[in-house]
Amino acid sequence: MDKPFLDKLRKIDPYVPGEQPQAADIIKLNANENPYPPAPGVQEVLRTFDASSLALYPDANGKRLKAALAERFDVRPPQVFLGNGSDDVLALAFQSFFCSDKPILYPDITYSFYPVWCDLFSIPYETVPLDENFCVNIRGYDKPNGGVVLPNPNAPTGCGLSLDALEDLLQHNADCVVIIDEAYVDFGAQSAVPLLDKYENLLVVQTMSKSRSLAGMRIGYALGSETLIATLEAVKNSYNSYTMDALALAAGEASVRDEDYFQQTCRRVIATRERSADALRALGFTVLPSLTNFLFVTHPRKQAADIFAFLRQEKIFIRYFKLPRIDNYLRITVGTDEQMDRLIAALKKFL
Amino acid sequence: MDKPFLDKLRKIDPYVPGEQPQAADIIKLNANENPYPPAPGVQEVLRTFDASSLALYPDANGKRLKAALAERFDVRPPQVFLGNGSDDVLALAFQSFFCSDKPILYPDITYSFYPVWCDLFSIPYETVPLDENFCVNIRGYDKPNGGVVLPNPNAPTGCGLSLDALEDLLQHNADCVVIIDEAYVDFGAQSAVPLLDKYENLLVVQTMSKSRSLAGMRIGYALGSETLIATLEAVKNSYNSYTMDALALAAGEASVRDEDYFQQTCRRVIATRERSADALRALGFTVLPSLTNFLFVTHPRKQAADIFAFLRQEKIFIRYFKLPRIDNYLRITVGTDEQMDRLIAALKKFL
Repeated sequence: MDKPFLDKLRKIDPYVPGEQPQAADIIKLNANENPYPPAPGVQEVLRTFDASSLALYPDANGKRLKAALAERFDVRPPQVFLGNGSDDVLALAFQSFFCSDKPILYPDITYSFYPVWCDLFSIPYETVPLDENFCVNIRGYDKPNGGVVLPNPNAPTGCGLSLDALEDLLQHNADCVVIIDEAYVDFGAQSAVPLLDKYENLLVVQTMSKSRSLAGMRIGYALGSETLIATLEAVKNSYNSYTMDALALAAGEASVRDEDYFQQTCRRVIATRERSADALRALGFTVLPSLTNFLFVTHPRKQAADIFAFLRQEKIFIRYFKLPRIDNYLRITVGTDEQMDRLIAALKKFL
Repeated sequence: MDKPFLDKLRKIDPYVPGEQPQAADIIKLNANENPYPPAPGVQEVLRTFDASSLALYPDANGKRLKAALAERFDVRPPQVFLGNGSDDVLALAFQSFFCSDKPILYPDITYSFYPVWCDLFSIPYETVPLDENFCVNIRGYDKPNGGVVLPNPNAPTGCGLSLDALEDLLQHNADCVVIIDEAYVDFGAQSAVPLLDKYENLLVVQTMSKSRSLAGMRIGYALGSETLIATLEAVKNSYNSYTMDALALAAGEASVRDEDYFQQTCRRVIATRERSADALRALGFTVLPSLTNFLFVTHPRKQAADIFAFLRQEKIFIRYFKLPRIDNYLRITVGTDEQMDRLIAALKKFL
């Protein structure tokens, strides 16, 4: 049968989201989720929320959540942008800021969504190799470009740049927008936020999915100059004015208002990370220094794919990327101490 | 100061979302919100939801909500697409299906977001005039095009097309994707859903914001052939895999599972609409026949802009569009009987 309407459809390779096993008795260390619940205030928001208010549209501008974030980061509310997870924020930022004919630059090993957005929005790009320690080499970004996007710390490798290195990068890239994707920054890395005052072309993107245990609520945000944020708002409002539902806005605010719980949760994850890294090294693994809530590891005598398959049988899910340079590495999310003990025990069995 | 990075920013006219007054003592008839709360099951979902599960990503595929919608509409789950409000669904559908060099077609007076998306995605378009009764003239769509998008019933005019007219439109537009935007269909119009079996190029878009009282929760969906839905999923997963948060998925499911409450709420709105239309006609207004939860009205001796301004002073908010052909019309959302009585009393005072 002739179907001429098919010619008018977007030709695109389907991007498949990562595996999310649902069984109850598994250990899930594959999606960099936080093993601890969100701030207690989030449960209270849900318990007391008046459902009848859901008949009304939410605040398109997210005024209260923006105010809480502005206070937390010592910026002005018009310097804050909200999105439906940091993927939404990044997708809008790519459309808003990478409108040049020159290629944008990002690391060869990095967040897998960057090339997907470049393809979707027809943005030219070039990758810059990480150095031999899997760290970002900022000198690789000293060339004409249409923009820069970097996770800091980088994913899935876990290495972070210092504030000096970030400033050096900005000084050499004043002609374009530089996006620092800080999805994992709260686990010990240095944030670029203090540079916002000085660099009007800097956009810092963060998420509540990792350090604030709110992956299920979809809350991301960007901090930047009022110029950059106004452009993001214009593009967002031309796409979907109401990306943040009323519950997400209220839950996000409750989380941001509880700094103590946030700090305490990050400290727990960091402590377990260091303890787990030591245990993995004792088993012969090479463990990259991590400033995130995951560990990137390799074993000199065992194949990563085999370890991954074995752990899967043991109902422990970690992440294996079959990609150049890292196809013998594994990414392991930091869970609770108990979960990590079970992981270490399973690895001992395997080795 | 020289700011070369500004050249790389997207040039776009900021689209400003409609006014959302927040004061407690107003009568809000300006956003086509439902005056009744969502199904009781929604409140129960919020009250009992375990916040600790928010640490995990939601189901990217929204399996349970898709199953509920598939059952409700007697289609297969791969024929259902979920989005962050119907604006998200429509924005993705424009990107997915309107990829031809030929202009897409839609009415000259219609949902104000269509031209915004065409501008954002560089989609060529032509508008087709509504007839003298502000109804869609389907013969205007009998010409080569890159796609068709129509609200049914149309907004802000409220007129609906019959199922026969919709089928006629599809028979004359087999070469492109036809999107029927059914935001208001549950208030008495005929849905195109029964045509899905026969027309693989038909996409029906609906929302839970109006008839299901869930504007604050951001839930839209599309129903179509597996071919169209697979293309939408591929584009969506290349943009943001997790658009629906865990609460929206659960609340949406609770709403869909309560058909009785849904039918009862729609009937109440329809009854108030007819009663209000009669009262407005008794005051001398011309009231277009409406199959929606709003009334589109004009007064032969009074200026719409003056009525709008007067009601605003009285803390009654309705909608006035200063646009060609309709600049002497007002759109009034159907509220409760009590709200409409207060509106009528205020109008009596004005006249």
